[in-house]
Amino acid sequence: MIGIINLSKRATTIFVFICVSLFHNPALGAKTRHFKWAVESMYWSPDCVENVVIGINGQFPGPTIRARAGDTIAVELTNKLHTEGVVIHWHGIRQFGTPWADGTASISQCAINPGETFLFRFKVDKAGTYFYHGHYGMQRSAGLYGSLIVDVAQGEKEPFHYDGEFNLLLSDWWHKSSQLQEVDLSSKPFRWIGEPQSLLINGRGQYNCSLAAHFGNSSSISCDLRGNEQCAPQILHVHPNKIYRLRVTSTTALASLNLAIGNHKLVVVEADGNYVEPFSVDDMDIYSGESYSILFTTDQDPSKNYWISLSVRGREPKTPQALTILNYSPTSASNLPTSPPPIAPLWNDYNHSKAFSTNILARTGSARPPTTYDRRVFLLNTQNHIDGYVKWAINNVSLVLPATPYLGSIKYGLKRAFDRRNPPENFPFDYDVTKPAPNPNSTYGNGVYTFSLNSTVDVILQNANALAPNVSEIHPWHLHGHDFWVLGYGEGKFTNEDERKFNLKDPPLRNTAVIFPYGWTALRFVANNPGVWAFHCHIEPHLHMGMGVVFAEGVDHVSKIPKEALTCGLTGKMFMNNKG
Amino acid sequence: MIGIINLSKRATTIFVFICVSLFHNPALGAKTRHFKWAVESMYWSPDCVENVVIGINGQFPGPTIRARAGDTIAVELTNKLHTEGVVIHWHGIRQFGTPWADGTASISQCAINPGETFLFRFKVDKAGTYFYHGHYGMQRSAGLYGSLIVDVAQGEKEPFHYDGEFNLLLSDWWHKSSQLQEVDLSSKPFRWIGEPQSLLINGRGQYNCSLAAHFGNSSSISCDLRGNEQCAPQILHVHPNKIYRLRVTSTTALASLNLAIGNHKLVVVEADGNYVEPFSVDDMDIYSGESYSILFTTDQDPSKNYWISLSVRGREPKTPQALTILNYSPTSASNLPTSPPPIAPLWNDYNHSKAFSTNILARTGSARPPTTYDRRVFLLNTQNHIDGYVKWAINNVSLVLPATPYLGSIKYGLKRAFDRRNPPENFPFDYDVTKPAPNPNSTYGNGVYTFSLNSTVDVILQNANALAPNVSEIHPWHLHGHDFWVLGYGEGKFTNEDERKFNLKDPPLRNTAVIFPYGWTALRFVANNPGVWAFHCHIEPHLHMGMGVVFAEGVDHVSKIPKEALTCGLTGKMFMNNKG
Repeated sequence: MIGIINLSKRATTIFVFICVSLFHNPALGAKTRHFKWAVESMYWSPDCVENVVIGINGQFPGPTIRARAGDTIAVELTNKLHTEGVVIHWHGIRQFGTPWADGTASISQCAINPGETFLFRFKVDKAGTYFYHGHYGMQRSAGLYGSLIVDVAQGEKEPFHYDGEFNLLLSDWWHKSSQLQEVDLSSKPFRWIGEPQSLLINGRGQYNCSLAAHFGNSSSISCDLRGNEQCAPQILHVHPNKIYRLRVTSTTALASLNLAIGNHKLVVVEADGNYVEPFSVDDMDIYSGESYSILFTTDQDPSKNYWISLSVRGREPKTPQALTILNYSPTSASNLPTSPPPIAPLWNDYNHSKAFSTNILARTGSARPPTTYDRRVFLLNTQNHIDGYVKWAINNVSLVLPATPYLGSIKYGLKRAFDRRNPPENFPFDYDVTKPAPNPNSTYGNGVYTFSLNSTVDVILQNANALAPNVSEIHPWHLHGHDFWVLGYGEGKFTNEDERKFNLKDPPLRNTAVIFPYGWTALRFVANNPGVWAFHCHIEPHLHMGMGVVFAEGVDHVSKIPKEALTCGLTGKMFMNNKG
Repeated sequence: MIGIINLSKRATTIFVFICVSLFHNPALGAKTRHFKWAVESMYWSPDCVENVVIGINGQFPGPTIRARAGDTIAVELTNKLHTEGVVIHWHGIRQFGTPWADGTASISQCAINPGETFLFRFKVDKAGTYFYHGHYGMQRSAGLYGSLIVDVAQGEKEPFHYDGEFNLLLSDWWHKSSQLQEVDLSSKPFRWIGEPQSLLINGRGQYNCSLAAHFGNSSSISCDLRGNEQCAPQILHVHPNKIYRLRVTSTTALASLNLAIGNHKLVVVEADGNYVEPFSVDDMDIYSGESYSILFTTDQDPSKNYWISLSVRGREPKTPQALTILNYSPTSASNLPTSPPPIAPLWNDYNHSKAFSTNILARTGSARPPTTYDRRVFLLNTQNHIDGYVKWAINNVSLVLPATPYLGSIKYGLKRAFDRRNPPENFPFDYDVTKPAPNPNSTYGNGVYTFSLNSTVDVILQNANALAPNVSEIHPWHLHGHDFWVLGYGEGKFTNEDERKFNLKDPPLRNTAVIFPYGWTALRFVANNPGVWAFHCHIEPHLHMGMGVVFAEGVDHVSKIPKEALTCGLTGKMFMNNKG
């Protein structure tokens, strides 16, 4: 025992709660699940370094919500922050009929003021692996997140068998507060926040030490953990010769990740709450905003334990690999794996990443997309200078969220709440995506793309060079209120010829899709959910710097918006002036 | 030249703006002065260490407002913080007729949400030296403050002569953010924020170096400043044989201060916007929330310069003296004073402090207080444990501000907005103020002391032992919406016998009064200002820990509250529900 993880029996009992019963609970049908949450800042040591996180009910990450498809979730959220507003977005939940519960400040509601309580009430209509997180300022970076898992409705079965289940919520962590990060990103001259200090698995990481330090190529020191620390890794305890479902979600602020389990194959079966045609890989990429289920079989030597590793993709990794352990029963969890942790693919091996993404296809029998579209929007993302500030822009417009939530200002026809001009649907045909933006007309804006209800919309996300020459970054784009079909990925600038390559047969349904450097990604969705919906890069500093757009559809069909969702900005004033 | 302050001509021109014209500007009568302010977090180096402050229009401290008695001030304040609300309190301005403009979150209005603009519009009815500062969470600690100077009305004269004028706004500064300080103070176990790293004069201090390091008893290194740094001291340039008015205000979060000018006598002429009978001292105390005007005569050797020093009182000083320089023309400002800086009185020489406080009397001819009172409230302040948290309490009740501003909830009779029971008016007669609180019934609360309009109210502030044995602290109590007469200070527990010692002849009018360790302070005011008013310890962490009460009077007479002041909490909901 080299003292890295000296798991006491006490620690073992702490860890077993993630092992979920294999048997279905013969519960009743759909029901309403009530939660009372208090959001507050508190001291915590996510990576063994004491810091402050935004926690829920004294926990970090927040409590896991577990429900069945068809259930209603009712979260009574009280803001116990001192001066900051707060909202929580239920990532991947489409919010049919409850667009006001989407938890996006400035879009679906006013931020909840300190001391106030807001009731998020919505239906989880589809089984799958989801999560929730803050959607105001950069509160996700501050640690405001947790898991939301929806099981199949009672009496229904998943289309695959498994004997046990684990849930891993992945994130990245900075030692600098999210408030300071916001100031950095909004400063002139610009200050980049840098790479995260640590990667966290279920809120647990190890800064300045490594569980695998005893393997030769590490310069880190060994972690001296008893197992009951806030930063001790959550061990996954398995029995031999079983099939386990591993739910994996990424709520990173910045990092794209690669996950591997030493000596074990991963079979991908779910992505973003939708079944995919199973395929097997040695390691998998996961971008911020995505979720997956993978199956793995415990078919390895049960006298050993195995590494589960997490590494940075797409950015030159300055953040150490995160590790935890797959522990075969009856082997002691204290026995460290005898082989070194999996070696991640090269950070810039984009072909490896593209191979993974293009492997993801809808499970046979899934709904196909409409074969034609009603409207196609091209969204070029560029990095720009505006008034000396560094911003991200879409078709040269950098998003600045308004003080009045769009859902209210559109519903009530308030003309001055945001820029009423339609934002650009395209970019100059001669734009050179391989060069830094010439940047002639970049501007701030908050106009809305308005779609006819039930129309079919194509979005062509077009990547380009950032401000520095020969730099183009990964951006995972997340759509609220919908899943979309990913029709295809391509290199360079999209041309009409590329449409021929679209996959209309078995494209996967997702809520998040990545654009690769200098590439494009084509999405199709049906605008069938009355409401106002954010569509944005899920990298939190990028969104803070303006990398998002707003979609609206059928807002006149939206009813029953709780008034307390709109007690700010011009909607607040409007209601007050009408009082008489 | 030893390189401490090498004042270039450029730096000199930067500094001269604090020298105000000696001649009256033959302007028009009372007028409205409009300001557009944007409040935002920004990088700044107040004490030569880079940090983040809350600034206004890119300045720290915020812009100085200068007006004439009778003028109306209209500040259109836009909150450009990312997720925090904001308000600004106009400290010392009584807000007759505009209680909604007092700028106290939870009391006079809702905090202004990020992205929103609020118009503070109020009259400055009385000449004097004032300041403004944030009054939400601990945003004052974050640097949200500035000066507000009201000259006498046109055609009127001050009752003393002076040839020139300077303004010094004093504060203390921590390297830890105010947000983290709030978390510290609200943590279980409690974490004290410690003493400030620096004292600032007009937002300028020097951490880890001293302008006077060349004098033997300093272990600090010399400051290497050119004079144009954000942390370079603001030099006071004077001519020989003149009389100068020095306006001094303290917006410290914690520190009580002592100010001295080497070799110069200080003649106190104004306190908190009220004239006092002039008296001369070698040094003066100033507590957070107070303002003074002093006159000094430049009657010293004009071939030398002199130190202006600022030292901590009442707490064992772990914060170095702050310094700046009184520069006699034509001597170069680069010539450092030849004598060491003034030596401050011992931090716990309370007799020295009491002598200063009791020296302050109303200028002959000032209005006298009513000779009798209608109601007398005793307010015992104790430090307590509540549920394991460390709190301050008044008569065993620790203030927790409600989500709905009192001004709205009282005006509109909302029953559930706060604790409707009357808070205690006294404390057990056998309470031993010399011992730590026995702490049997401490509780949170937010009840209101309601006074009949135009009644005369006495408040006996009673100090006591804190949680640690043999510790009793200084607390400067500040009343909003009123000046009060300070009838007297005393030792130990107040008894009815003490009333005989009250000064009803020439007590000073103030808005802030200190209680000394283990002592009492007696105040009298007329509740003649319809509104809801905070009365609290001006030490910001103490208020954060519950050390305040709320006074209400004649709220049914309040009209024209702008509705945007009440778009939060239950008032927000009430207006919305009435919409129909």
